[in-house]
Amino acid sequence: MQKIVCLLRLTDEEKEQFRAAAGENEIIFTKNSRYENIMPVDEDLVKDADVIMGWIPAALLPAAKNLKWMQAQSSGVDHYMKPGLLREGAMLSSATGAYGLSVAEHMFAMMLGIMKNLPAYRDLQHKHQWDDLGPVKSPKGQNILILGTGDLGSTFAGYCKAFGAHTIGVRRDPSKPAAGIDEMHGMEELDRLIPEADVVCCLLPHVDELVHFFDYNRLKSIKADAIFLNTSRGALCDNEALARVLSEGHLWGAAIDTPEQEPMPEDAPLWAEDKAFVTPHIAGGDHLDDTLRKVAAICLDNLKRYLAGEPIRNRKV
Amino acid sequence: MQKIVCLLRLTDEEKEQFRAAAGENEIIFTKNSRYENIMPVDEDLVKDADVIMGWIPAALLPAAKNLKWMQAQSSGVDHYMKPGLLREGAMLSSATGAYGLSVAEHMFAMMLGIMKNLPAYRDLQHKHQWDDLGPVKSPKGQNILILGTGDLGSTFAGYCKAFGAHTIGVRRDPSKPAAGIDEMHGMEELDRLIPEADVVCCLLPHVDELVHFFDYNRLKSIKADAIFLNTSRGALCDNEALARVLSEGHLWGAAIDTPEQEPMPEDAPLWAEDKAFVTPHIAGGDHLDDTLRKVAAICLDNLKRYLAGEPIRNRKV
Repeated sequence: MQKIVCLLRLTDEEKEQFRAAAGENEIIFTKNSRYENIMPVDEDLVKDADVIMGWIPAALLPAAKNLKWMQAQSSGVDHYMKPGLLREGAMLSSATGAYGLSVAEHMFAMMLGIMKNLPAYRDLQHKHQWDDLGPVKSPKGQNILILGTGDLGSTFAGYCKAFGAHTIGVRRDPSKPAAGIDEMHGMEELDRLIPEADVVCCLLPHVDELVHFFDYNRLKSIKADAIFLNTSRGALCDNEALARVLSEGHLWGAAIDTPEQEPMPEDAPLWAEDKAFVTPHIAGGDHLDDTLRKVAAICLDNLKRYLAGEPIRNRKV
Repeated sequence: MQKIVCLLRLTDEEKEQFRAAAGENEIIFTKNSRYENIMPVDEDLVKDADVIMGWIPAALLPAAKNLKWMQAQSSGVDHYMKPGLLREGAMLSSATGAYGLSVAEHMFAMMLGIMKNLPAYRDLQHKHQWDDLGPVKSPKGQNILILGTGDLGSTFAGYCKAFGAHTIGVRRDPSKPAAGIDEMHGMEELDRLIPEADVVCCLLPHVDELVHFFDYNRLKSIKADAIFLNTSRGALCDNEALARVLSEGHLWGAAIDTPEQEPMPEDAPLWAEDKAFVTPHIAGGDHLDDTLRKVAAICLDNLKRYLAGEPIRNRKV
């Protein structure tokens, strides 16, 4: 008999499905149906767990000395992959596929809002000021460059196309197509593609060689009236450089959901740049019911696979 | 020989096309290619004009004593139709069809922004405050009720469908379908449909019997967490009532591009409602290049028709 600790936010119906899947095994739910924690998430909870499903602080992972399988709630799992965290031999899987809709919608909302000068109009509203800020942009006919064309990039590309944009994808293996992408290129073409784009949308994963990929010079190589979006990993863009570029009047605007440091420090220069639009890493997470239901479905499917001795999906370790 | 006064914002190429269409007739352009006025728009300009194309203040119209045809730049032309303005016997045509993209994109940007709490996140940005505001909404699976299903409503509906929404249209003659509308109903069903909608989007024309159609009670009949959009004619919604409804915590949010009074007075209560999102009647107008090009095409086509003695399109008088 295995002990399964489930930290997911589930509906009553989903809990029944998880219980049925668990069969004779012990399954512990840490949240009630109103989504409140009903037990502390600490070493006691995880110390004899065979399976953990959902979000726990990475620092708690070494306490799970019996762990056979960690099913994360997130799409990226780099925070659990640092040496010494996961028990040797344990599996790790992600919830990739659950966040495309949520993140892509948020990115599109920020991009279209910036095109229509909506952040600046919100600022005028607070001054009770009726002023026409002049020309706006449309996605129609724009070249939208999407760096990273997995679930998120592909879903975002589909929305752009519905508004008449031309979508250009960049991925490691450009021979692999992706839904919504009109033309695909390899990473080595980035420095040719960036200066031609009307929108540059960064969705690349956090890997060491890409830290500060968007430095001052590369940000300056973007067209002067283009839009820059980063809703993936903060470290990919030098935030001080971005604030400087914007303060020089370069770029139509920039949307940042994932700054370099979280929470973003009160004195970070991006807060004060009018052409920057900052949201506090909320594009994904558990903000949309659709995401929670998809996470639950992925985890339930994997639980059945795991207990049947079949290979689990989205396995990272 | 006729005198044609052209107040449109044209590219050099379009000017050549208009000149060619005018043939032997006199055509005067009031704007240079940098879109600056190069002659005053006053009685002198219009007094012997046979044709006026573009925007002039309605108060100038009576001075055009030779006028045979007024081609407006706008979609709505009610401001030119008041008694005593247009010379008896002169024709009046609109630029209907040029604004669908611009207005629909703006409306969608406001709606999606409100769903994602973007106005509130902009407010937090100015406080340098990293706070998660909780759940957001998605258009997916939402019932979006669109009052008025012409060019604007139909284009907006298409965007909603691309994001997975269900679109419900209301028009005078529900037997006429419209692109993007999943189900069409007649005006008499409105009071049944409004309380069932997740988004209520008002695009009705200004007619006397619809003034303050959205009064306090009807606004309260909208679902408590639904979104209300008005980007058509301000008079259709009682703005004081809307501010009151919002201040009572009713509605997820409201977007207003067309308040009752323009400019909206500094002490209008809507400015100060956080759940209201106000833009200064800029959804349409000349903010988007796409609109200007479409207006030019409509006017050029009508100019050719007029000079060939054929019926002009979009004729209102």
